[in-house]
Amino acid sequence: MSAPRPLVDIVGAGHVLDGAALRERPQDFWNPVATRARAVVSPASVPELSAVLAWCNDNGCPVIPEGGRTNLNQGTAASPEAIILSTMRLDRIGTPDPQAMTVEAGAGAVIQTLQERCEAQGLRFGLDFGARGSAMLGGALSTNAGGFQALRYGVARDQVLGLEAVLADGTVLSHLTAYAKDNTGYDLKQLFIGSEGTLGVITRAVLRLHPGPVTRSTALLGFRDFEAVTRTLATMRRNLQGTLSSYEIMWEEFYEFNLAALSEGRRPMQDRFPFCVLCEAEGFAPESDDERFQNAVMQAIDSGDAGDAVIAQSLRQRDELWRIREDFDAEQRLFTVMIDFDISLRLRDMAAFVAEAERSLAREIPEFLGLHVLGHLGDGNLHVTTGLPTPERKDEVKALIYALIARYGGSISAEHGIGINKRDYLHHSRSAAEIATMRRLKMALDPRNILNPGKVLP
Amino acid sequence: MSAPRPLVDIVGAGHVLDGAALRERPQDFWNPVATRARAVVSPASVPELSAVLAWCNDNGCPVIPEGGRTNLNQGTAASPEAIILSTMRLDRIGTPDPQAMTVEAGAGAVIQTLQERCEAQGLRFGLDFGARGSAMLGGALSTNAGGFQALRYGVARDQVLGLEAVLADGTVLSHLTAYAKDNTGYDLKQLFIGSEGTLGVITRAVLRLHPGPVTRSTALLGFRDFEAVTRTLATMRRNLQGTLSSYEIMWEEFYEFNLAALSEGRRPMQDRFPFCVLCEAEGFAPESDDERFQNAVMQAIDSGDAGDAVIAQSLRQRDELWRIREDFDAEQRLFTVMIDFDISLRLRDMAAFVAEAERSLAREIPEFLGLHVLGHLGDGNLHVTTGLPTPERKDEVKALIYALIARYGGSISAEHGIGINKRDYLHHSRSAAEIATMRRLKMALDPRNILNPGKVLP
Repeated sequence: MSAPRPLVDIVGAGHVLDGAALRERPQDFWNPVATRARAVVSPASVPELSAVLAWCNDNGCPVIPEGGRTNLNQGTAASPEAIILSTMRLDRIGTPDPQAMTVEAGAGAVIQTLQERCEAQGLRFGLDFGARGSAMLGGALSTNAGGFQALRYGVARDQVLGLEAVLADGTVLSHLTAYAKDNTGYDLKQLFIGSEGTLGVITRAVLRLHPGPVTRSTALLGFRDFEAVTRTLATMRRNLQGTLSSYEIMWEEFYEFNLAALSEGRRPMQDRFPFCVLCEAEGFAPESDDERFQNAVMQAIDSGDAGDAVIAQSLRQRDELWRIREDFDAEQRLFTVMIDFDISLRLRDMAAFVAEAERSLAREIPEFLGLHVLGHLGDGNLHVTTGLPTPERKDEVKALIYALIARYGGSISAEHGIGINKRDYLHHSRSAAEIATMRRLKMALDPRNILNPGKVLP
Repeated sequence: MSAPRPLVDIVGAGHVLDGAALRERPQDFWNPVATRARAVVSPASVPELSAVLAWCNDNGCPVIPEGGRTNLNQGTAASPEAIILSTMRLDRIGTPDPQAMTVEAGAGAVIQTLQERCEAQGLRFGLDFGARGSAMLGGALSTNAGGFQALRYGVARDQVLGLEAVLADGTVLSHLTAYAKDNTGYDLKQLFIGSEGTLGVITRAVLRLHPGPVTRSTALLGFRDFEAVTRTLATMRRNLQGTLSSYEIMWEEFYEFNLAALSEGRRPMQDRFPFCVLCEAEGFAPESDDERFQNAVMQAIDSGDAGDAVIAQSLRQRDELWRIREDFDAEQRLFTVMIDFDISLRLRDMAAFVAEAERSLAREIPEFLGLHVLGHLGDGNLHVTTGLPTPERKDEVKALIYALIARYGGSISAEHGIGINKRDYLHHSRSAAEIATMRRLKMALDPRNILNPGKVLP
């Protein structure tokens, strides 16, 4: 199939991908199958994008908004008759304003570019996650991305002061305000953040920035019980005066596995611990930050909460510690058929949840290949990965874990969204009344159901 | 008129106010006229509240949600045929959880009680504003209140992790989650926060808490130019490592007026300054916080940015400084007919806006009684108050200032909401497309238009 002529006229033939070229393009980073769609259309401006949407709406043509194509739940998968609407050309990044501590950026801005542009002005963009090099602002906002620094700066939603989005019928809603307080009627931007392109297409945002830290301290701590992990988090929050930026927990099975795969036998800490935590603080006082961080780590040990700790003495050591947390290559080899969960739980439930998940898997699906658990503890967010030797019982594993999350009152998606992959499990976290209300909103804003149909809502 | 029998049956006769008793009750703190309404109904529980709403929806009866009755824009004013639905009995406050740093509270919880309950656990509820002693959580959330600490902790919206709200038809949407990351479909809570009871009635929330600071340092600084004020804000944010909690600016005319009214000739600083700033930091390190604060203040002076400064040496001195900022008694006497604006502007526009407002008023409405400007600088939020000797030209003053706000791309309501009073000015901050989209949402969630009709939307 080829692109509809009117759309080619709007964006220009050079910005349409269809036919054979499209079939050669992988759907996304995680699904290297051929892209299914009628065409990928890349407008250069908001008026062009609005015109594309208006045409699609008038013609009942499904539209799949697309950014950096690293969505984890097939949020940009298309059907053969759909138009993929890429916002990648809306990539302008304004000059970060050090006085107002804001920056305006287009949906196509790559997260890492945005980070670097702010860093150059001594400012910090508060969002950081693994796919920073490919993910674009539009995708990060429409999935309300989380990541490594949410403990300190919040999630994607918290970075947004003003937003521009285009409705299914092409209506441009532009509210690019740059202030923290604005109670002028309904806060429409909240509808588009986190709704995965099903209610509108985000085109631009004014983002809140933070003072750029000048110091960084990193430590790995080992804990013998979970209570001690959470107690230390609370103490560190106080002792580090709000400079604590990451507090990443790793359960023993994951930590030891990745350590063995990466470190050639070297161990940062001699003993094994049920829980390891990678914690990092970033501050503004070169003369005192290191000492304060050391004191905080020492206090965790002296109080008996931490069994051991190592403080990174160089950038290289810091990167080695983070690699244990961030590298998933060995894990991808271990889990022939990988099944991963991105969940939120109350802190007090976490240890029991993981223990019960392990027991249930051992009992019900004894061929499972292990349970790797890590996460952003301060956000209540765990990433749980397991695997099977063959795919047959994959859905059973999912059903078992999702039901367990529901029983603990947890969230089946902390930061990756729903897309297609989790759509049919949404009822584990949201009531029938909530899902019905979501449908009412969808009907109100996209009555012809052209925007990312089949995503999010079951 | 008396309360409908079915509603009396739901909540019990002792929890209905109507007839003469109702006529004796003032509408709200700011409008001491008799309450107009058929009855005030106070359910004891969410099921009761849901039943009240369902009956009203079935019978096309307007419902005005009500909390502590200190709304500044007549957000709880009713028509004679309306039912006022008070959430004051939903006042349960759970035990604040120091580990998870959360607390669950009902809509009827008084803000100050909530603050004190958290303080007792060494935790801080991040919302504080003048009406703390009367305002209730439901009202604070439904108006997305701001206040003194937003610079550090954000506005009301930012405090909410989980929310329960009831739709017009009685549908209970309960999502009382206690974690920071949750991307399970549309974030419905955002619809009810800040929509002033027009989309649903908030009944309960799980709130995010922060570590309770143990030190407090307060200073008053005088500045000769506005650039220096904003430069010092940026520097203080860094130097105080995120412990800066307030940065309140006062223009000279307001500061000198209130100082003269309150201090019996004593002046904290000898000179007059075009701008004074009350700044406060709250930290966790008793051994070093005071010194760091003093250094930050000294740096502001040594750099030439601040012309003078005084650091509070006692709680009494601290309260005296805050009184200059918070007391409005003398102002209420000065401005026979008071007209106040609660606006957001870009920092770089503020000084020019105020100067232009003053010039325009002097030219167009020369009888105006002065222009008092103060605000939460770090939030881009100014409170601008003026007055007239007689009410005739009040609407002219409003039209002049609102048009000026629009020209500067500002917000006509930073933190007080729209209610009735600002409804007809909403178009100065929101486009026709945005207002039309708000109407679509209203139609989707409250098709019979029973919830707080006539508020927010023009």
